[in-house]
Amino acid sequence: MIELTRRHLLAGTAALAASPLVAGLSARAAAPPAGQQAPGFYRYKVGSIEVTVVTDGVSKFKFTDNHVGNKSRDDLNGALAAAYYEKDMMSTPYNPIVVNTGGKLVVIDTGTSEANYTRSKGAAGQFQTNLKAAGIDRNAIDIVLISHFHGDHINGLLTPDNKLAYPHAEIMVPAAEWKYFMDDGKMSRAPEGRMQDVFKGLRRVFDAIGRKVTQYEPNKEIIPGITSVATPGHTPGHNSHIIASGTSKVYVQADVTHVPFLFARHPGWHVFYDQDPIVAEATRRKVYDMLSAEKMMVQGFHYPFPALAHVEKTATGYQEIPAAWNPVI
Amino acid sequence: MIELTRRHLLAGTAALAASPLVAGLSARAAAPPAGQQAPGFYRYKVGSIEVTVVTDGVSKFKFTDNHVGNKSRDDLNGALAAAYYEKDMMSTPYNPIVVNTGGKLVVIDTGTSEANYTRSKGAAGQFQTNLKAAGIDRNAIDIVLISHFHGDHINGLLTPDNKLAYPHAEIMVPAAEWKYFMDDGKMSRAPEGRMQDVFKGLRRVFDAIGRKVTQYEPNKEIIPGITSVATPGHTPGHNSHIIASGTSKVYVQADVTHVPFLFARHPGWHVFYDQDPIVAEATRRKVYDMLSAEKMMVQGFHYPFPALAHVEKTATGYQEIPAAWNPVI
Repeated sequence: MIELTRRHLLAGTAALAASPLVAGLSARAAAPPAGQQAPGFYRYKVGSIEVTVVTDGVSKFKFTDNHVGNKSRDDLNGALAAAYYEKDMMSTPYNPIVVNTGGKLVVIDTGTSEANYTRSKGAAGQFQTNLKAAGIDRNAIDIVLISHFHGDHINGLLTPDNKLAYPHAEIMVPAAEWKYFMDDGKMSRAPEGRMQDVFKGLRRVFDAIGRKVTQYEPNKEIIPGITSVATPGHTPGHNSHIIASGTSKVYVQADVTHVPFLFARHPGWHVFYDQDPIVAEATRRKVYDMLSAEKMMVQGFHYPFPALAHVEKTATGYQEIPAAWNPVI
Repeated sequence: MIELTRRHLLAGTAALAASPLVAGLSARAAAPPAGQQAPGFYRYKVGSIEVTVVTDGVSKFKFTDNHVGNKSRDDLNGALAAAYYEKDMMSTPYNPIVVNTGGKLVVIDTGTSEANYTRSKGAAGQFQTNLKAAGIDRNAIDIVLISHFHGDHINGLLTPDNKLAYPHAEIMVPAAEWKYFMDDGKMSRAPEGRMQDVFKGLRRVFDAIGRKVTQYEPNKEIIPGITSVATPGHTPGHNSHIIASGTSKVYVQADVTHVPFLFARHPGWHVFYDQDPIVAEATRRKVYDMLSAEKMMVQGFHYPFPALAHVEKTATGYQEIPAAWNPVI
């Protein structure tokens, strides 16, 4: 309050007070706070391939009593406190990536959509803004590669007026995911509530683009430099991707674990997002045992930005060691 | 090579190939790699105070045999491997911060200087570039607050033509640091090599600005919201700073530990930068015991960007838990 008063007395408006005109005065006005975060993108190389992590932001919400089926609210709050997160609140980061293989410009997973920017009051739905800040034109995207059919991975396929957000892109989806979720019989037998919402949500998205997709199989080099890996459990056709060039590799794990500070740390915790929690846990342990044994870097969709880390086996689960920010690439 | 050839065949130049004119062609040219990292700044609030971490970059160099006086090269390489750093190489991040208290715009420590940008081939000396990217005008800086008199903390006071980089700023330095290092008798008795270089280097900087500085005492609120703390050992007059507003606090530790992946993890390791390693170790253990007991966040000049973390006591030292990137502030 004092600061505003002082500014007004000095120069009438904050804008004028901050201008070079008054910079030389001995009683200079305080600089206004910037109030805005840095653009959320980060670059690194995998051999000759360039990866740009482009954050869609972070959602925060109170978790429900059944958020983790086999654990209590107190267990969750204990794990949140151990990771210095707020009690009773889930923080979920979303981190799509853009892969420039040299031949193709590929978005892997899309984030929650531009339409979510307003709904979330700017906390999420940032992908297009950050993509632009990273100097990447959505019209230049050749391929959008989808790991699985949850909203935070596919909703960003559409603009707010329900057009394809990447006009020139081929949309690649896991064949097993397509087979399962596009089966109207499976939809009709799915329980009311969240599972029905998943089926309806993905129909909304894929119908808007005329169901024009390319289905891909697991465990194949589906784009030069990018290999699909079947990692089921979270959804039936969930795929991860390995980016490889020369002797370098990074494992793009999608939702093998949701937020690592809860579910890498406690791989046996069954979050309600995991459609088959038993299969999801087995997949998670297998992938994380491999990552830690091979010291392979992992890019995690729900890891805190820039979401790139090594992981290590601990007595009770896994610990991620975030990659150090590299100011040059 | 193939990619370039293809581009040339298609459209003559890479710029044209990337233009919207050819975006609709079925055989589109690949987008060029960006090749450039995101601007290195990060914002957060401490109560009503706005902090902008502005990285100066990272230096990499082969460490010498006496880099850590009481440990062997193998010990260092073991710790580097445990933190997923390259063998035999020291990576040193530099992270000055800008504090907007509402009344004052304060730079704490300066980085290695713009002149170092060319010398380091762009890896360090980035502070002014990133400051500009953060929307902060160097002319608007009211105060430059110096923790201690090593080159990576003071050299950025000068432009490449040896003018004050912050034309309107008051330069605040620890009184004990000034008293010790400006003593010509102490300089004459200092050993040849690095210690002589420290004395000469700081004279170069402070003489260029006519030794026009304000000396500050430890353990006082020297700027509203910023309190100095005597943390000697690294240098005789080394100070840390606590930023506080409302119920929030962050401990700006300067060089209480150098890179945390070596020296928080192993507080008893005596890096050659610590002028009095015994006092430095005692200070380090005292500060880190306090930080972990009080769960106070620490901003570390030599932590990887954005250099903000909690710290925890372990069986053998301390472990930092980096703060999760917040996409809004």
